[in-house]
Amino acid sequence: MFEFEPAMLAPIAGAIALVFAGYLAFRILRQPAGTARMRELSDIIYRGAMTFLNKEYRVMVVYAVIVALILALVVNYPTAIAFVVGAFFSALAGNVGMRVATKSNARTAEAARKSIGKGLKVGFSSGAVMGMCVVGLGLLGVSIFYFLFGNPEIIVGFGFGASSIAIFARVGGGIYTKSADMGADLVGKVEAKIPEDDPRNPAVIADNVGDNVGDVAGMGADLFESYVGSIIAAMVIGFMGVTVGGVALGQTDAVVLPMLLAAVGIFCSIVATFFVRTGKGAGIKVLHMALNKGVFGSAFLMAAASFFLIWFFVGAIEIFYALLAGLIAGILIGISAEYYTENRFSPVKSIAVSSQTGPATNIISGFSVGMLSTVVPIIALSVAILVAYYFAALYGIAIAAVGMLSTLGITLATDTYGPVADNAAGIAEMAKMGKTTRVRAERLDAVGNTTAAIGKGFAIGSAALTALALFFAYTQAVNIQTLNIMDPKVIVGIFIGGMLPFLFCALTMRAVGKGASLIVGEVRRQFRTIPGLMKGKAKPDYNRCIGISTSAALKNMALPAALAILSPIVVGLILGVEALGGLLVGSIVTGLLLAITLANAGGAWDNAKKYIEEGHLGGKGSETHAASVIGDTVGDPFKDTSGPSLNILIKLMSMAALLFVPLLLKVWGG
Amino acid sequence: MFEFEPAMLAPIAGAIALVFAGYLAFRILRQPAGTARMRELSDIIYRGAMTFLNKEYRVMVVYAVIVALILALVVNYPTAIAFVVGAFFSALAGNVGMRVATKSNARTAEAARKSIGKGLKVGFSSGAVMGMCVVGLGLLGVSIFYFLFGNPEIIVGFGFGASSIAIFARVGGGIYTKSADMGADLVGKVEAKIPEDDPRNPAVIADNVGDNVGDVAGMGADLFESYVGSIIAAMVIGFMGVTVGGVALGQTDAVVLPMLLAAVGIFCSIVATFFVRTGKGAGIKVLHMALNKGVFGSAFLMAAASFFLIWFFVGAIEIFYALLAGLIAGILIGISAEYYTENRFSPVKSIAVSSQTGPATNIISGFSVGMLSTVVPIIALSVAILVAYYFAALYGIAIAAVGMLSTLGITLATDTYGPVADNAAGIAEMAKMGKTTRVRAERLDAVGNTTAAIGKGFAIGSAALTALALFFAYTQAVNIQTLNIMDPKVIVGIFIGGMLPFLFCALTMRAVGKGASLIVGEVRRQFRTIPGLMKGKAKPDYNRCIGISTSAALKNMALPAALAILSPIVVGLILGVEALGGLLVGSIVTGLLLAITLANAGGAWDNAKKYIEEGHLGGKGSETHAASVIGDTVGDPFKDTSGPSLNILIKLMSMAALLFVPLLLKVWGG
Repeated sequence: MFEFEPAMLAPIAGAIALVFAGYLAFRILRQPAGTARMRELSDIIYRGAMTFLNKEYRVMVVYAVIVALILALVVNYPTAIAFVVGAFFSALAGNVGMRVATKSNARTAEAARKSIGKGLKVGFSSGAVMGMCVVGLGLLGVSIFYFLFGNPEIIVGFGFGASSIAIFARVGGGIYTKSADMGADLVGKVEAKIPEDDPRNPAVIADNVGDNVGDVAGMGADLFESYVGSIIAAMVIGFMGVTVGGVALGQTDAVVLPMLLAAVGIFCSIVATFFVRTGKGAGIKVLHMALNKGVFGSAFLMAAASFFLIWFFVGAIEIFYALLAGLIAGILIGISAEYYTENRFSPVKSIAVSSQTGPATNIISGFSVGMLSTVVPIIALSVAILVAYYFAALYGIAIAAVGMLSTLGITLATDTYGPVADNAAGIAEMAKMGKTTRVRAERLDAVGNTTAAIGKGFAIGSAALTALALFFAYTQAVNIQTLNIMDPKVIVGIFIGGMLPFLFCALTMRAVGKGASLIVGEVRRQFRTIPGLMKGKAKPDYNRCIGISTSAALKNMALPAALAILSPIVVGLILGVEALGGLLVGSIVTGLLLAITLANAGGAWDNAKKYIEEGHLGGKGSETHAASVIGDTVGDPFKDTSGPSLNILIKLMSMAALLFVPLLLKVWGG
Repeated sequence: MFEFEPAMLAPIAGAIALVFAGYLAFRILRQPAGTARMRELSDIIYRGAMTFLNKEYRVMVVYAVIVALILALVVNYPTAIAFVVGAFFSALAGNVGMRVATKSNARTAEAARKSIGKGLKVGFSSGAVMGMCVVGLGLLGVSIFYFLFGNPEIIVGFGFGASSIAIFARVGGGIYTKSADMGADLVGKVEAKIPEDDPRNPAVIADNVGDNVGDVAGMGADLFESYVGSIIAAMVIGFMGVTVGGVALGQTDAVVLPMLLAAVGIFCSIVATFFVRTGKGAGIKVLHMALNKGVFGSAFLMAAASFFLIWFFVGAIEIFYALLAGLIAGILIGISAEYYTENRFSPVKSIAVSSQTGPATNIISGFSVGMLSTVVPIIALSVAILVAYYFAALYGIAIAAVGMLSTLGITLATDTYGPVADNAAGIAEMAKMGKTTRVRAERLDAVGNTTAAIGKGFAIGSAALTALALFFAYTQAVNIQTLNIMDPKVIVGIFIGGMLPFLFCALTMRAVGKGASLIVGEVRRQFRTIPGLMKGKAKPDYNRCIGISTSAALKNMALPAALAILSPIVVGLILGVEALGGLLVGSIVTGLLLAITLANAGGAWDNAKKYIEEGHLGGKGSETHAASVIGDTVGDPFKDTSGPSLNILIKLMSMAALLFVPLLLKVWGG
């Protein structure tokens, strides 16, 4: 007779998430996409994004085949298969999410024509498709391999596949989006003095495409990796045997629990999507509140549900405290990001004020805000780590990461909503939709900017905790009981690991700089050579700019990606497993700190500019505003390329270390 | 009968250094100080600098009395005495060095009137006074306490005294100098479009004073601390017992050797000062070569002399390899800093090129160069650590730091030469000394900029190695044999320690921003209210600006200083000695990386501007030049306030940890 295994809940929840995503997508696509001009614009963006993805896939497939062969040779076949499936699922989630996002922008703008509440609904639903695809495919993948092999070490291959896609998606997407954005702004806004999103600007569509490939596909792959990584780390540590409160957990219980928590998280997220709604004439605050209701509501539901789950399933309530620590830390990190990047609060205002003495003081002030914003997240994470460890040792730290990411279905929905609303505002502007609609679309966009900043903070915090959990899983897998900092190899590992995020940022920033200058050249060329363009009588060649951004991204993503994948393996082979442990810790520490600094400085500069544009300190067109535009531009690659890419760097390195444990043990014995 | 102890060589060498410093100072003061106008300018700078120092001393004395009382209560009396003497010696070295430097600026300009070689001689001699005072008083102090108490743990008090002065000098001096510099530039160069060093600018003298209090007194205190710290760390580790190549060193030998190496280093430095000379019509390259001859010559002499010293005194040549590793790493770090900040090489040129698309791309490009420049120093340090440890374990790492700093007498001379030449160029400009002299003075200044950049790289590298040696000394003193990263308290310590440099930078940058905006207000006020000022018919009120910078510095240095001193103690008391160990490592890693990034980005921006001013890419007055000026201004607090202050932060925290070991052991047992 068929007996229901609790673990079955995981694939079921995954499948339900996918069905729900399908339902949402179906509902969105039934919405009207507006006028011919709107559909045309949306279509160019859609095709531009797909062109980029397809080209990116070609690079990824070559890479995946090579890595799969290596894995089959030095690790084992099942891991190689898991790797390929992980890569495929991550790419699939990104692809579907982005298709829907690019189909939703015009529909969001059109819905905003009726009411702001309807606009929010379409935009948010489109984000929810992404969120549900990520958690659905993530949990489904992990649970399939669990049922096939039972051994979490093979599922690491699935995580590594996801990580590999993530590094290409984040770095490639990040370079793409900011090359286009900076290029468009530097010539359009600064030189030609035409407004943002002006259809005469040849790079404007590339910029809109960039929002999708960077902030939708990139963010999705990033969090797919975190989500899967946290579950796998907890499973690997659980597999080694867990003792909580003096009582040993059953091995199966310890391995299955993370999947069950994720399953419960999916249900909570689905329920919470229905909290996100608002009336007709909602202002920014009300919109914001609506999204917050979803995020906090799901966290609250998750806390309650996981209490009962842990109580009945494993009976060790200590694990619940560990989970709660992660959940609360995640929320605190998000709130801190909001405080440092929202123009209601003093940090952003201080940047705006310092813009009065020019761009240099604006930059210094923003940089200082970014660095200051590391304090709260570090303390929140530190407390979460200590609490989680106190209650449930290393397993507790991994469970804290699972807790932080359990409601990803909805947090990712609010993140993805950001670029959709941004695109909607762009289309409203370019298709000349009338003032009321444009104001509504801009309002939706403004809220999206905040949720994006919070989402970034959350992505960073969860990445650090996941990477840490993976690091601990690595130490368990290589069977290190103590990793002594006083061993100079370990300290050298920490130094090198600490340096890698700096090198990685340097490379990604340089790539954006190069890409942007190519776009600048092309936009200048079109302004000069296409007659009637500036008068709006001729159309610019949007596709040239899309092509340039695409090739800049593809060309320049290889080196940082190689660095991330090869460094841990090389250091592990040359200096040994302890040095590699040091490298992971070093990279997590500086990666986390730099990522927070860059993300929040970038967000704060952006909103300082918006604050001035609202009419403060001289408003648009003033010297102060010009200074703030420069800070905003500097912040572009900070917050959208280098900063977020660091999330992947630290997770990918931990994942690579964990995956290549068999090879390392062959070389170093163990 | 009196028997000569080898250790006696240390105080003798210290005394000789002081005598040599006295001789050089005497020779400088006999030089003519030029016209009445030159003497007047030099005198205002001298008095401004002294005013600042005297006010700073008042704060320091209060602080020193409180700390001495605490030390007497929780540690012991001799340590408290050593602390007071350490603070006094460091302040004395800074005071004498700065007096001579401020007396030398006009004399350097006047000597340059005769020939560039004479200018170099006066400027460099003045730097050498500082160098010799630092090494002389440093080694004298350490050896006096060695002879008095024999126990290196008491000498730690001397080091902590030096550290305490250093944090005030670096942070206070750094805030002072950049508030004045940025304030002067933002109104003078950017708004009023008057040239740099224009006597009509009310903040110009404050700026010149700042060069002295920041780059002379600040740098001197910084390296005094590194110098003393490296010797003490080696002595503490030596005191615990050292085994090299399977043979145990005599305890006395292990404790005395670091002092002897320092003594030999002093002799090598004195000899090498005579290598620094050049002919009459020397260009920048020849001037540069002359200074390099001194630096490399002394390193070469030191390598040879220490080989024989180690061979005959302890007979364990392995120690020599450790020393050599440090010496070579120091040189490599200096060369790397030169590569990334000199406008002959591609990094600076790439920043200049990216200025063509505006300030934003200039900033991003400079930031990326700064981060990229961390790679070589990290690898050089890593190799030095591994080599030194391989040959002589933890003692080897401390000896590597001693080796790196052994020729400080001359490296500090070339550093201090920088601000003297800078002031000389300013005086030549303000006193309208004629074109030939001004060109010569500017050439001397340009070479000084490079040596300052190299000096900063060297200061950072030596600070990191010294802090690491102090960290190891700390672990020995609390008797930790393994410091396990997998202990969550240790990892939390690393996180918090890693965050502190970010917080510290944020605070110091914000302080500069505040100070600069006060200066901006004052300069604008004087331009507006003093009739005839802009036409050169009335004199500005220089002293108001000096007063504003002084009070901004004194007010804002307390919080960062308190942070540096209290964090290790608080973390040690709350989370334990292991967490404190983690904190030290975390702070060293991120402190080192941030310090290199900030110093080299700042230096590179500065020289990219100079490169454009030489006539490239449109030259002075072009849009490209304007963009590069903004980068240069952003770089000001990066390279001269926040970056260098991090050196002190990491050393001071290690020193505080080491000093409060008795208290920590009382609380935590051990």
